[in-house]
Amino acid sequence: MPKLLKLSLMGVFLWMCACSPEKPAITTEETIVDPLPSWNQGATKSAIMEFVEDVIDPNSSNYVEPAGRIATFDNDGNLWSEQPLYFQLIFALDRVKELAGDHPEWQEKQPFKAVLEDDKQALLQSGEHGILELVMATHAGMTPEEFQQTVQDWLKTTSHPRFDQPYNKMIYQPMLELLEYLRAHDFKTFIVSGGGVEFMRAWVEEAYGIPPDQVVGSSIKTEFVVEEGKALVRRLPEIDFIDDKAGKPIGINKFIGRRPILASGNSDGDLQMMQYTAAGDGPSMMLYLHHTDSVREWAYDRDSHIGRLDQGLDEAKEKGWTVIDMAKDWNTIYPFQ
Amino acid sequence: MPKLLKLSLMGVFLWMCACSPEKPAITTEETIVDPLPSWNQGATKSAIMEFVEDVIDPNSSNYVEPAGRIATFDNDGNLWSEQPLYFQLIFALDRVKELAGDHPEWQEKQPFKAVLEDDKQALLQSGEHGILELVMATHAGMTPEEFQQTVQDWLKTTSHPRFDQPYNKMIYQPMLELLEYLRAHDFKTFIVSGGGVEFMRAWVEEAYGIPPDQVVGSSIKTEFVVEEGKALVRRLPEIDFIDDKAGKPIGINKFIGRRPILASGNSDGDLQMMQYTAAGDGPSMMLYLHHTDSVREWAYDRDSHIGRLDQGLDEAKEKGWTVIDMAKDWNTIYPFQ
Repeated sequence: MPKLLKLSLMGVFLWMCACSPEKPAITTEETIVDPLPSWNQGATKSAIMEFVEDVIDPNSSNYVEPAGRIATFDNDGNLWSEQPLYFQLIFALDRVKELAGDHPEWQEKQPFKAVLEDDKQALLQSGEHGILELVMATHAGMTPEEFQQTVQDWLKTTSHPRFDQPYNKMIYQPMLELLEYLRAHDFKTFIVSGGGVEFMRAWVEEAYGIPPDQVVGSSIKTEFVVEEGKALVRRLPEIDFIDDKAGKPIGINKFIGRRPILASGNSDGDLQMMQYTAAGDGPSMMLYLHHTDSVREWAYDRDSHIGRLDQGLDEAKEKGWTVIDMAKDWNTIYPFQ
Repeated sequence: MPKLLKLSLMGVFLWMCACSPEKPAITTEETIVDPLPSWNQGATKSAIMEFVEDVIDPNSSNYVEPAGRIATFDNDGNLWSEQPLYFQLIFALDRVKELAGDHPEWQEKQPFKAVLEDDKQALLQSGEHGILELVMATHAGMTPEEFQQTVQDWLKTTSHPRFDQPYNKMIYQPMLELLEYLRAHDFKTFIVSGGGVEFMRAWVEEAYGIPPDQVVGSSIKTEFVVEEGKALVRRLPEIDFIDDKAGKPIGINKFIGRRPILASGNSDGDLQMMQYTAAGDGPSMMLYLHHTDSVREWAYDRDSHIGRLDQGLDEAKEKGWTVIDMAKDWNTIYPFQ
């Protein structure tokens, strides 16, 4: 029985009790607390809670042992916003400007020149290769500890142009509740994102309660060195692993070593993770977040450059996966609201 | 105060109580249970317990928050035995013999011919490249699920030549206690091994209580494919990552994302992991297991082909790391004894 149904029944019961005041009302935490208060009642919320209550029920044929309760979440556009540009890319552009003093050659060299002159046209023309050059120039050379410090400093000193909030506050309240709800039922929650793993590790534990070893992401290579007697790892300007599209199931197998039973994403980059999850032997739930809220967040899907959801939306509908309609299913977007 | 000291004091206290029988003896689980019963009393056991009690003490200057309590353990020769040959290599040789019927060409092709004819000389001559060929031929082509099944089947049907026990029973009882002791104090325990990650994932959760996502090891590449409508990952005959020597700190950074505060190993292949752990900002403990017990297990170090401990032993002594003397410090080796 979904918790909300229990809650309604409990409401009737409490009302009955109120008529006979000599009997104390029986209340337990389970019946009073809605674990997903930012989710509106409806098919989506019910589907999630019914799935969870089913797989944790030892008497259900869909019961899954705690060790098998693996849930994987995409990050950009799924746990936090990703508009008008992936926040990690905004970080990289900000870093180029900050480091430009040490790199006079960037004044005349693309794609750096485009960044320094705020020339979006030239930046777009530099394409994926240009973006990669920017990332390497700003993400490599230092230790992971030093890199994470620059990310944390950036989060403290910048804010989102539309909401005037630090980027790490642009996280979705309903997803925080879902993560917590799953963990309360012995799910192990992982991030599986195309974003940089060290970029995320700098802040996701505080934001989502997900520790560094439960973050799977794209990475650059590193080397082990001993410098002045101190052993450390140094980041190299070379791609190690791209955790996107087919890379997601590969990353899940590599880092987690178990097929998820719940996968949550929002773009075509998550489709293979969904397919991989759906193809497991036991029960599974695939959640696609559809950005439908142009007023409180953003509305985009098939034609978007960022977080494009096209093939994934078709496949979700065809296969009966759960599509979260942000405008309809969520009564709150951000914790600061 | 180490638990054992507490225990002794409690003994005195209980003896005093015995003199005045009207007062009930105060006993708590903490004071009665020795968490490391297979470890003999002495400097090694005290050093371990003092370290743990120090870092979990909120009033200590060495206090470490639970999130930072990362402990990494090598596997071969550290959590289970590795003589007369790495057990995974024995598995590979057994698999070659099992699969030989489907590969008539192996009868005349090295290093397979050497395996099929039990020709150790020729096998040794094939060197590292030959071993790699054997591993690829027996570890790739299938899904991780199928591969793990072959490992589990092998564990059920084979036994160690000297002890006549399944290989997954050749684990060290004192290390099981240490893992459990650390976890009881909110340490997160990881395997960081040169062994194959999928080979270990097949059995380590049951053996050590370490889940698949807390196993860091060497790996081969995989690809994502959809076969007959079913999404899966397939293992490819190509090396992805070698988690040994300098690869260990790199693997720790990649998979765990945090520097350990306790590292445990037994060979020169663990030295860089020890150096990396020792170079952390806070407290740290480096444990080197020295195989000194030719009667109950094996005795080997500087000249061994398997699990060679030479430079590591020197550095441990020079830097005051804790060297576990198996013969002296352990009163039990295997759980089946």
